Amino acid sequence: MFGWGMAEIPAGFEDLLEQRLYGHLATVGGDGGAQSSPMWFDWDGERVRFTHTKKRAKFRNIQSEPRVAFSILDPTNPYRYLEVRGTIDQIDDDPTGSFIQELAHLYQAPWAGTSTGDEADRVILYLRPTKFVSHG
Amino acid sequence: MFGWGMAEIPAGFEDLLEQRLYGHLATVGGDGGAQSSPMWFDWDGERVRFTHTKKRAKFRNIQSEPRVAFSILDPTNPYRYLEVRGTIDQIDDDPTGSFIQELAHLYQAPWAGTSTGDEADRVILYLRPTKFVSHG
Repeated sequence: MFGWGMAEIPAGFEDLLEQRLYGHLATVGGDGGAQSSPMWFDWDGERVRFTHTKKRAKFRNIQSEPRVAFSILDPTNPYRYLEVRGTIDQIDDDPTGSFIQELAHLYQAPWAGTSTGDEADRVILYLRPTKFVSHG
Repeated sequence: MFGWGMAEIPAGFEDLLEQRLYGHLATVGGDGGAQSSPMWFDWDGERVRFTHTKKRAKFRNIQSEPRVAFSILDPTNPYRYLEVRGTIDQIDDDPTGSFIQELAHLYQAPWAGTSTGDEADRVILYLRPTKFVSHG
């Protein structure tokens, strides 16, 4: 069952959301031009979740233009990728850093379990897909 | 020697432009939201060059908003990346497909040397950096 306007993951591309891969998040900067950077992520079945901080330009970009895109390349087949276009529809504070720690464990970061020192500024970004583009 | 407004590559990050890696190109869509997809590229010492076709949305995006961004993650160190922000300042037709063939050879595509069938629509995009963002 899918609600109105809910985008469906293209068949056979679910693994790119479920593996521990690095995707690249595109946002629109305050000048109207594009910006891009690699990000950890987790797919909760409905939305892509990212950890971020309030101190960085990307956070301001998202507040002024919440329509972002996230592309994930299959590391075993460079002709295969998934792009998630959608809207950052929720931003939660993460004052204990619980979500960045969850991702640090999933991505096996050597510092997992130790403070990042920026918990006061940590947020969780939720990307709700409006369109998927797949290739390969 | 650098001309006025020419961005300098952060020291120690040149290799990310010179290796045969996959970067992700962020553009701004006609609706004002971001789009992203992985791309082959070549760095000519001044600009990042991409092969593309006139038939795809990204081409129209670039014509209406030439300020794009391209991010490259180090496959051996996921804490290290380079983002190139800049402007697509030239688009050349590639009616013989010579540039896509050059990239196909560099990236060791299994079909290198055979026609892509879309030479009539092939173009070369030139991204002139205005800002580099590096991490790691």
